[in-house]
Amino acid sequence: MRAVRWGSGAHVNHPRIEMLPSESVEDASALARVYTPGVADACRAIAGDPDAAWRLTTRGNSVAVVSDGSAVLGLGDIGAQAAQPVLEGKAALLKRFAGVDGWPLCVDVRDPEEMAHCIAAVAGGFGGICLEDIAAPRCFAVERHLQDALDIPVVHDDQHGTAIVVLAALQNALRLTGRSAESAKTVVVGAGAAGTAIVRLLTVWGVSKIAVYDVNGLLHPDRDDVGSHDDIDGHREWLAGNTQPDPGAVSVSEALADADVFIGVSGPGVIGAGDIAKMADRPVIFALANPDPEIDPEEAREHAAVVATGRSDEPNQINNVLAFPGLFRGLLDCRAHELTVAAQFAAARAIADTVSPADLHPELIVPSVFDEKLVPAVAAAVARSCQP
Amino acid sequence: MRAVRWGSGAHVNHPRIEMLPSESVEDASALARVYTPGVADACRAIAGDPDAAWRLTTRGNSVAVVSDGSAVLGLGDIGAQAAQPVLEGKAALLKRFAGVDGWPLCVDVRDPEEMAHCIAAVAGGFGGICLEDIAAPRCFAVERHLQDALDIPVVHDDQHGTAIVVLAALQNALRLTGRSAESAKTVVVGAGAAGTAIVRLLTVWGVSKIAVYDVNGLLHPDRDDVGSHDDIDGHREWLAGNTQPDPGAVSVSEALADADVFIGVSGPGVIGAGDIAKMADRPVIFALANPDPEIDPEEAREHAAVVATGRSDEPNQINNVLAFPGLFRGLLDCRAHELTVAAQFAAARAIADTVSPADLHPELIVPSVFDEKLVPAVAAAVARSCQP
Repeated sequence: MRAVRWGSGAHVNHPRIEMLPSESVEDASALARVYTPGVADACRAIAGDPDAAWRLTTRGNSVAVVSDGSAVLGLGDIGAQAAQPVLEGKAALLKRFAGVDGWPLCVDVRDPEEMAHCIAAVAGGFGGICLEDIAAPRCFAVERHLQDALDIPVVHDDQHGTAIVVLAALQNALRLTGRSAESAKTVVVGAGAAGTAIVRLLTVWGVSKIAVYDVNGLLHPDRDDVGSHDDIDGHREWLAGNTQPDPGAVSVSEALADADVFIGVSGPGVIGAGDIAKMADRPVIFALANPDPEIDPEEAREHAAVVATGRSDEPNQINNVLAFPGLFRGLLDCRAHELTVAAQFAAARAIADTVSPADLHPELIVPSVFDEKLVPAVAAAVARSCQP
Repeated sequence: MRAVRWGSGAHVNHPRIEMLPSESVEDASALARVYTPGVADACRAIAGDPDAAWRLTTRGNSVAVVSDGSAVLGLGDIGAQAAQPVLEGKAALLKRFAGVDGWPLCVDVRDPEEMAHCIAAVAGGFGGICLEDIAAPRCFAVERHLQDALDIPVVHDDQHGTAIVVLAALQNALRLTGRSAESAKTVVVGAGAAGTAIVRLLTVWGVSKIAVYDVNGLLHPDRDDVGSHDDIDGHREWLAGNTQPDPGAVSVSEALADADVFIGVSGPGVIGAGDIAKMADRPVIFALANPDPEIDPEEAREHAAVVATGRSDEPNQINNVLAFPGLFRGLLDCRAHELTVAAQFAAARAIADTVSPADLHPELIVPSVFDEKLVPAVAAAVARSCQP
């Protein structure tokens, strides 16, 4: 049943989602079933066995999509309420692509522990939590606190969704250029939420020659801000200790000499065409800053074998929407308690493999989100990875 | 667009609501509009002017339906998660009857101030808060804290929804039996959430001879538990100080002698047919305990002119669903900052007047919720009452 739309258009004209009853309520018996006294049976069942909530309520199909509005798109810290359109858009895509009911929640709290406390307090109705557009380094602490408090998956999409899609794209780029994870010298610029998660996931996957640069230059163990008081959750310390910085390569430009892969999650102008020319033969360039990539993709293609960006008007768009619908579908389907590395690997592999070997091409290293094989493949792979 | 339903039926078979995208997303341009970069315009607009959220997001049409599960239906304190079916049912009815998007939130916190803090933290996406099935006296404190923290209406439906419908029913019952509010000697049994709100609203409306009884008997200013430490929010003190207890009428039975109106929000067996026989001529009996009324309605009708219950299989069902859809529709339509007494009076009058004078009858003192005139009338009356 589609309910009649009420109210004047002046009040509500651009919401991206709406809530609908699952069944029609046209007479007293339907009313008694949908509301009291009909709901009492379901309430009693859940009181007796909390697991029953997974089949008797929306919990088994729903994800809270949560932000504090501290790092919204490229707009920065614009406040919790201003993040609502992003959350609604994400909810719309979760349903469109994966049948998942996404519930936007903008949380107007800034202390990470307090924010996690408030989200955990209302988490009982959801089968998963998708954190969104929370500034680094606070995002690491919020995610950690929530993961400790809850037994449902808590996924900061700007970290893990991005990392999964980058890993998928990199797998196909390495295939195309005949490289291995172990040997590919990789330079990552940007150590925020996305950069940190990308490096973590690539490292565990086996990319063993990574150097990371941020606004303060090369990340290495002796840098002042590594392990300092504002290195919340120790993410810089982890990066510095688990990558292979070359102390001689002070600048990104120096690091790129003979490098095989560049991954930018920073901002425009970080590298130039000359830097790419100095890289190893047929290099891989992921210039993911949005809306303006680290280097003009046209220029990058002059020297690079594979160029990917975050832009929808360029080939090889690295977009979280390739990952999060299937990821959450899979996590809900297997009733996962957490997002494991195995699930992230499974999702990345499924995304990469959705591009068939025959179609794989420098301008087609990731599938389209409209490829109907994509979400079912990701969901199934993730669900399989969660099996005990 | 109705999204494809995913996942196995075994996982999700009884949710009462689902989330749907408001528009179809079938190509890259729709994707760019619904998600990034399209949402950025709306985010920027809200960052510049928070009022824009009312037209650019679901806020202008949405109500959070919130419970801690401490007093669910007649089931008692069964926990936050077990309240979820009630919240989903309520959300389904909000949409069905008033086009309002209701968002269930079960809150697993018991301290009233902390509970209010967590709800307030996530309130930025909603145009109103509907509190539900929270035990008295905690419900009074939670509501008060939230009202202080937020500039949107916060309505504990078990209090105010019930009180509005009781006032509507009483108005028609007094019409039918030729009584006035000022002269009708009224006995209320039950001083929990519903009883307290009913007495408060009837008192302000002009019912000037009320006596209230609870499990400890007659509520009067000298009773030990009136104004005591567990009289949270001072509701017993207010009731004792603003009603007209007759110290000589120790029992409900004694109070009913010559009384005109009995309103029970307590439990079965509180009064007998003999008690009704001793009341004034043609008395009004509202035996609202659910599922088992204070007295068998058949027995009550032997002596009473008008009998109402909470049961759907009896005439004159006093059911919150007569009030809350239109009430929230009206509050959202006028973007109310609070639920005023004027709005409650307006809602009650609209409900009462939906029964036309020609139809008014001892077995038809409240309309059916399926009466298509009801919700628009309540919504319009409430919206008018909120005009500056």
